[in-house]
Amino acid sequence: MTRRIALLTSGGDAPGMNAAIRAVVLAAQHYQAEIYGFYHGYNGLLNNEFTLLTQADVQGIIHRGGTILKSARCQEMRDEQGVKQAVNVLLKNKIDALIVIGGDGSFNGLIAISKQWQGQVIGIPGTIDNDIDGTDFTIGFSTAVNTGIEAIDKIRDTADAFDRVFLVELMGRHSGHITFNVGVSCAAEQILSFENFQAKDEKKLLNKIAKQITDAQQKRHSSYLIVIAENLWPGGSQALANNLKQLTGIDCPLCTLGYIQRGGSPVAKDRLLATKMGVAAVQAINNGQSNMMIGEQNNSMLLVALSTAIQHQKQVSQTLVEAQENIFALTEKN
Amino acid sequence: MTRRIALLTSGGDAPGMNAAIRAVVLAAQHYQAEIYGFYHGYNGLLNNEFTLLTQADVQGIIHRGGTILKSARCQEMRDEQGVKQAVNVLLKNKIDALIVIGGDGSFNGLIAISKQWQGQVIGIPGTIDNDIDGTDFTIGFSTAVNTGIEAIDKIRDTADAFDRVFLVELMGRHSGHITFNVGVSCAAEQILSFENFQAKDEKKLLNKIAKQITDAQQKRHSSYLIVIAENLWPGGSQALANNLKQLTGIDCPLCTLGYIQRGGSPVAKDRLLATKMGVAAVQAINNGQSNMMIGEQNNSMLLVALSTAIQHQKQVSQTLVEAQENIFALTEKN
Amino acid sequence: MTRRIALLTSGGDAPGMNAAIRAVVLAAQHYQAEIYGFYHGYNGLLNNEFTLLTQADVQGIIHRGGTILKSARCQEMRDEQGVKQAVNVLLKNKIDALIVIGGDGSFNGLIAISKQWQGQVIGIPGTIDNDIDGTDFTIGFSTAVNTGIEAIDKIRDTADAFDRVFLVELMGRHSGHITFNVGVSCAAEQILSFENFQAKDEKKLLNKIAKQITDAQQKRHSSYLIVIAENLWPGGSQALANNLKQLTGIDCPLCTLGYIQRGGSPVAKDRLLATKMGVAAVQAINNGQSNMMIGEQNNSMLLVALSTAIQHQKQVSQTLVEAQENIFALTEKN
Amino acid sequence: MTRRIALLTSGGDAPGMNAAIRAVVLAAQHYQAEIYGFYHGYNGLLNNEFTLLTQADVQGIIHRGGTILKSARCQEMRDEQGVKQAVNVLLKNKIDALIVIGGDGSFNGLIAISKQWQGQVIGIPGTIDNDIDGTDFTIGFSTAVNTGIEAIDKIRDTADAFDRVFLVELMGRHSGHITFNVGVSCAAEQILSFENFQAKDEKKLLNKIAKQITDAQQKRHSSYLIVIAENLWPGGSQALANNLKQLTGIDCPLCTLGYIQRGGSPVAKDRLLATKMGVAAVQAINNGQSNMMIGEQNNSMLLVALSTAIQHQKQVSQTLVEAQENIFALTEKN
Repeated sequence: MTRRIALLTSGGDAPGMNAAIRAVVLAAQHYQAEIYGFYHGYNGLLNNEFTLLTQADVQGIIHRGGTILKSARCQEMRDEQGVKQAVNVLLKNKIDALIVIGGDGSFNGLIAISKQWQGQVIGIPGTIDNDIDGTDFTIGFSTAVNTGIEAIDKIRDTADAFDRVFLVELMGRHSGHITFNVGVSCAAEQILSFENFQAKDEKKLLNKIAKQITDAQQKRHSSYLIVIAENLWPGGSQALANNLKQLTGIDCPLCTLGYIQRGGSPVAKDRLLATKMGVAAVQAINNGQSNMMIGEQNNSMLLVALSTAIQHQKQVSQTLVEAQENIFALTEKN
Repeated sequence: MTRRIALLTSGGDAPGMNAAIRAVVLAAQHYQAEIYGFYHGYNGLLNNEFTLLTQADVQGIIHRGGTILKSARCQEMRDEQGVKQAVNVLLKNKIDALIVIGGDGSFNGLIAISKQWQGQVIGIPGTIDNDIDGTDFTIGFSTAVNTGIEAIDKIRDTADAFDRVFLVELMGRHSGHITFNVGVSCAAEQILSFENFQAKDEKKLLNKIAKQITDAQQKRHSSYLIVIAENLWPGGSQALANNLKQLTGIDCPLCTLGYIQRGGSPVAKDRLLATKMGVAAVQAINNGQSNMMIGEQNNSMLLVALSTAIQHQKQVSQTLVEAQENIFALTEKN
Repeated sequence: MTRRIALLTSGGDAPGMNAAIRAVVLAAQHYQAEIYGFYHGYNGLLNNEFTLLTQADVQGIIHRGGTILKSARCQEMRDEQGVKQAVNVLLKNKIDALIVIGGDGSFNGLIAISKQWQGQVIGIPGTIDNDIDGTDFTIGFSTAVNTGIEAIDKIRDTADAFDRVFLVELMGRHSGHITFNVGVSCAAEQILSFENFQAKDEKKLLNKIAKQITDAQQKRHSSYLIVIAENLWPGGSQALANNLKQLTGIDCPLCTLGYIQRGGSPVAKDRLLATKMGVAAVQAINNGQSNMMIGEQNNSMLLVALSTAIQHQKQVSQTLVEAQENIFALTEKN
Repeated sequence: MTRRIALLTSGGDAPGMNAAIRAVVLAAQHYQAEIYGFYHGYNGLLNNEFTLLTQADVQGIIHRGGTILKSARCQEMRDEQGVKQAVNVLLKNKIDALIVIGGDGSFNGLIAISKQWQGQVIGIPGTIDNDIDGTDFTIGFSTAVNTGIEAIDKIRDTADAFDRVFLVELMGRHSGHITFNVGVSCAAEQILSFENFQAKDEKKLLNKIAKQITDAQQKRHSSYLIVIAENLWPGGSQALANNLKQLTGIDCPLCTLGYIQRGGSPVAKDRLLATKMGVAAVQAINNGQSNMMIGEQNNSMLLVALSTAIQHQKQVSQTLVEAQENIFALTEKN
């Protein structure tokens, strides 16, 4: 008996979402299930806008950024009314299971649906922010970090040519994964991220950075790059840039990488992760699981309760933070 | 008899400057001249900070962004005093000729020096802005355009996934070369550049774009990208973004590509152009030329008087503007 | 009255063919003509396999490699019989004009058709080889060169790390455009291309290169890269590698870049050229032209008789060859 | 008291080696140790060719491919005589500890030295092959995989345009990590790697692939990519290409990616891994450890006995192999 699985991508798009869609569709075919692909995130579910996805639809998409199912944020799903409407569409189409590729907001919707619906619900963590607990990596994170380092490598060229200071703001909502990983990868002279920043120390930190900049400029032949997480600095990153200029008399222009971090062809890591997770999601459904997120830990697939996954925000690896400190301490002494 | 040629890079750095340095050094060796590389633009000349460049110094740099001679803008060169100081250093080092790789500001310095110095002066047009008259392309322009399209291709992924509007601001000081070429290359729905914009039509244009955005959004399944040149829109690009949001009720976030456009490994076009120009500069000196800029027209090298090169700002090719109009007219009708 | 224009891509695929297809479709819409897209090159014409291309079909393709119309080589078009069959299909579909994007082989087919058909025929030069006379650049060439330099920049890393010799073979059938441009751009120590090679000097050249390699290895800290055009060396590039090893005792492995040079997202230059040429092709038809190829010279569009375009193979720019000689002479002395 | 640490890179170069060198130097400075960088792998040790590495030497190298210390294979180190010579140089320079970045061959040298020398020896796994046991990833592997997928994405463009078959050979000596990961990431229709290949099944496999190719070609509109590990197919990959052509009558050209897989700017994963491992190596020395390799398991650093690391060749993750099987089974049915 053929089973019907609904699939949608929700929240901010992430490179590798298409690879996950492909894997779900091919694995579903392997297990003789059908995939109903709903468009525009939960909106497609509310509006009953879907297509039956076949092997032909997912050919030639593993390397494409974005999502062929489109994505959206969906305000209605925060209300009882919206959730009921979603459940009605699932019932009407005789759907047996629902797979959602997205972040924690998307998983909240999934949990809400599962409270009013008998079908199985499975989440696949797809977000560039990497802030989902229960999985070492989320789909899209590795590509976003690489996009970040390619951009900053270019800014470094100009910084070096002019022995100049630059402040670069990276995405991540309220988590520092992208910023910290990019900062270490680009040998940033200063990483300002949620891991190592406390608002009360703001003034002290400001003076410390100003001093480092002044020292660096006196030595000449040295650029100084600061990477900073969005939503971190009180008053915004531009305020930091202004303050530094005031303290040092040296231009410290802000570069906001912005939306280039979301798109682009996924790196291998994201294609592989998405492929493994897509297959695992279909297998989980085949095994009768529900209310689970597919996670990867220690290079193996596992199931994590959706409620656990959204409980805490995952922190940046201590190994990395400590490695960086052993390199940074040095800079501070000089 | 060995001749002494001074070389410096000045103004905004541009990918390919290193390739030009390499070509100058190797060609100089061919013609048995010595290259005195001055650091930090004209500042190195004022401070007598230089190195003798040999073949070994320029190995492995043809593909590097930035400039091994560093660059800078130099306020002092705008004063009589600074120019005199530069001439003194040239005399003191018994320099026979001076090659400057830079933009129109840098060429002004060169002209000023030539008025007080008997040596030969030759300019090589190196700027991402491509606004120098007398040459089809400047070193760095092609790479900057490619960096722009790679960034916007990524933004398009997200725009497509969300059927969303984005406004992307590109560099170019007061010329539209980068913006126009990137806009056509990325199939931007709207290109706002100096070629097709008049401040007095601002209001009319605003309403036209707002209507296009509203139409595009009603059709769904369509993103809408606007590329805009920096320093174009009265009040700045953010003002445009705000106005569009107000008129349409639709978010129209601004992405400022900023300094990533300056750096990066040069594309082939810039490596080739820089190589040809570097060789031509040394040949021009060998032929007794002075006060000339090396230009490329119709794929051939030629000499253009420095005074001519800085007289007018080069315009974007009419062929390209017209091609785009034949594609745009369509969009407007729909 | 609506006109019907047939369009096909033929011969080896080239990055930018999709951009040209897009431009033809959008410009046709501008001039109220219809585009019949035939699949698989001339094969689609023989088999009457086509689709009507609309604006929606060409959205999101300007940056894709390959061709959405697919391509193929077509043996049948070399026979009278095949040409007749093509003409029949054109008549049957009441086609007014035929645009073919391809290389000189494809243009031969176009000329053959025009002898038996009253409709207009227009060629757009699309080939990575850049060997078509009458246009400064063909669509795809600039991307192929950039793909080449990115690959060789990587090989250089290993060559430098080991002070090693590598021989890299590039595409180009019987022309040296790719090889020569890539060689100069990568600062290759030796460029073996049709421009500077004569089979009778083979032995002398072999000894010269062997000596350079031995010299370079003695100095240590120096890699030695040779780029070579396919179909150049008598007995093939592997024979050269073997001979050099025999003469020097030093490993000289051959890397054949192969098919990675054909694909990939087009660089800006190819997107721009394709856009301008696609529009110009539709305009030429609108102006009643036939038997013409669209060319670009000195950054302007022009029409070149198809018969002229295929008469001679375009040579590598003398400016570039001479620039390289002024750099190479040096190497030889050392 | 300052300690003296010797450092060298050995065996095939891998992207990220420079990032590891940088981390070792900066961490050493943190722990007040000196770094003696020996050139050309063990050869530099034998010839006493070294430099004292300071912070300035490792600025601007985190993103460079290759290795600033150069690398080499060293035949002499396989003899008692060579090892003794290495030990002599270590003693002569009063070295306290030796860090080697390389693969299993390089670790053998390290073990041999440790048998005759009282100093501490630490290995850092740097090889694109990822075949070292005791660490989830080796430095360079992730970049090599990404280089592989970028190349194959381009080949796919041409394969799609022509509905064509291609056979692509990837590096990996005798392990399938690169091939398998690239194959999954590129949605290859067939992955021929050490994990799923047994020489005795060669004939059966050949017929199976030939049948799949024939089936795919009959459907039209479908390309077929085979990725194959070097040293896998009896008689070589070209023999496979020939056999397939014979069986199917369809061209099946072989593309050998070759040395482009070794070089290039490291992806973030390799920069991060190299940074963490470099710091960990210095810490291990500081903690009195010896005869250990730095490994990463489950995103944490750990120490693995060198003898253990080289005992077995690490296998491709079963999770990945199984995921792929759930996608492949499908292809086989069609």
